[in-house]
Amino acid sequence: MNKEITIYDIAKDLGVSPTTVSRALNDHPAVNVKTKQKIFDAAKQMGYRSNVFASNLRSKKTNNIGIIVPRLNSSFQSSVLAGMEKVANDAGFNLIISQSLESSEKEKANARTMFNSRVDGLLVSLASNTENVEHFNAFLDKGTPVLFFDRVASNSGCTGVVIDNTQAAYNATKHLIEQGCKNIIHVLGNTKINVYADRLKGYKYALMDHEIPFNSKNVIYSDLNEEAGEDIANKIINKKTLPDGLFVSNDACAASCIQTLKQAGIRIPEDIAVVGFNNDIISRLIEPNLTTTHYPGYEMGEVAMKNLINHLGDNSKGVLQNTNTITLRSELIVRSSSLRQKTT
Amino acid sequence: MNKEITIYDIAKDLGVSPTTVSRALNDHPAVNVKTKQKIFDAAKQMGYRSNVFASNLRSKKTNNIGIIVPRLNSSFQSSVLAGMEKVANDAGFNLIISQSLESSEKEKANARTMFNSRVDGLLVSLASNTENVEHFNAFLDKGTPVLFFDRVASNSGCTGVVIDNTQAAYNATKHLIEQGCKNIIHVLGNTKINVYADRLKGYKYALMDHEIPFNSKNVIYSDLNEEAGEDIANKIINKKTLPDGLFVSNDACAASCIQTLKQAGIRIPEDIAVVGFNNDIISRLIEPNLTTTHYPGYEMGEVAMKNLINHLGDNSKGVLQNTNTITLRSELIVRSSSLRQKTT
Repeated sequence: MNKEITIYDIAKDLGVSPTTVSRALNDHPAVNVKTKQKIFDAAKQMGYRSNVFASNLRSKKTNNIGIIVPRLNSSFQSSVLAGMEKVANDAGFNLIISQSLESSEKEKANARTMFNSRVDGLLVSLASNTENVEHFNAFLDKGTPVLFFDRVASNSGCTGVVIDNTQAAYNATKHLIEQGCKNIIHVLGNTKINVYADRLKGYKYALMDHEIPFNSKNVIYSDLNEEAGEDIANKIINKKTLPDGLFVSNDACAASCIQTLKQAGIRIPEDIAVVGFNNDIISRLIEPNLTTTHYPGYEMGEVAMKNLINHLGDNSKGVLQNTNTITLRSELIVRSSSLRQKTT
Repeated sequence: MNKEITIYDIAKDLGVSPTTVSRALNDHPAVNVKTKQKIFDAAKQMGYRSNVFASNLRSKKTNNIGIIVPRLNSSFQSSVLAGMEKVANDAGFNLIISQSLESSEKEKANARTMFNSRVDGLLVSLASNTENVEHFNAFLDKGTPVLFFDRVASNSGCTGVVIDNTQAAYNATKHLIEQGCKNIIHVLGNTKINVYADRLKGYKYALMDHEIPFNSKNVIYSDLNEEAGEDIANKIINKKTLPDGLFVSNDACAASCIQTLKQAGIRIPEDIAVVGFNNDIISRLIEPNLTTTHYPGYEMGEVAMKNLINHLGDNSKGVLQNTNTITLRSELIVRSSSLRQKTT
């Protein structure tokens, strides 16, 4: 049963011409409805599939959109992918998905594979050690749009979909200051990534605006995962002077940090007020509930995919040409991990 | 720059024959290393891409593997996908991923798309209302392997990768009984799905073996998400007699349930001992830490993909033919949400 069914087989089976079969399958108006239905039924029953490859060769379109993310098993990225898939599927596109595992080398290899697979467009959230985005030039040279999301490349000429990370970090830090914190630790990832570089800026600006001197020893670089949270808590516990505020760039890491701090007898928020980032489910279920920034991953996926697909439409070529950045709304959600009586 | 570069363009540019270019790009031994490098460099610089479609038409292989999951934004499924992607990428396959959003209709539509895209193989975790798997017959008729994981179809003739859900639920329930529980509530999803049907069996068997009568009112069907956890907790609080044990088929739902129970003044584990399922990060960070079954999602993804790819190898056709079920190890992890002095 491995033989591929052709329109000739269907034509022979039904005693009609191959042209009629071809027209019927392409919903040509010259074929009457009854005949069409008969041909559809026979095609389905015989296991016919339209020759997508051959028609791809003609149209030069694959209806495939490539996505490269740092990690598939991330709460944030899986929300983004869910939003992207919903929009793409409704519009008749397939997603080809790969992960860079935070390696620029693997990202390059993935980009080559996507290029050879002739995706119609590419959506990328960059690996943490990606220094430049030349490996996407081949797409741009062919007129294949590349759109970045969350972790974007500045000055790449491509559109990026982001939140205002500087403002979000500014608001989080300002909130801690308003709760009486004067010695605030900021935990973040590699500042080669716009996301963390911008949040560091926001943290510094908020300190500056409230006349608190910036101390580089209060910045901790981290992988921001569950294990890292424990390490960071231990570092904090061993400091000569305990900080009174903690702003972590990821909820899972903040939650794990809180757990270890509590086990050491440190009270949250009384001794240390804590703020996370993302509004993951964990932020609503740990104790005390975690103050965090709502980062709309699902919506980011929808917006990125809609913009890419609109750009691919025949009548709308170039909608992304002059768009540098699409910024989504984010907001600080205050919960009990940071809310305390002013101690000053 | 939209014109597709051919081997003729490269040949002309370098002043060699098209045959030499073609041979070099296919790493033919007749072309010397230096010439090969020159041709590779020119191909890269000119933006040549191998004609994957044309070669697909010849080989009838696409190197694409289709995956259909109920939801992309699920902690468990994203671990599975990460494991699958790692194995597939290393073996030179692309993943085409879609989600059924728990709808059998959408699952059918996704299967049709995958079929027309001529995936080399298909991995599926079924939607909760899928009653039969006839929509995958078209693949089997063409000799394209279909492999189910987590939510599998019994008697489909396809291989399924699972854990022993009956045994896992038996162990969880037995543990609660050993902690003194006599009135245990089980929260689960649609029992059309093997996963939940099997867990219900395990729960019943454990009760039976310990001479505790089964009470159908102690079984709560649920969407098993964060919101559902709150509803379930409220149902429990309003019962005439409070249960003394709670076995929930998902950690996020169990955690949300615990939070609401605690807010109502119910002590965990003293009043109600609670067990979840999956060993998500949340189980290690809520208070008290949640007893749960470690469900190895990443490993399940690896095993499913390895088996599918091995089956695709030219020399190993049919490795899945006689394999009905691949069962992975799972284990109960006891933490403080269920650990208490025997009260009997």
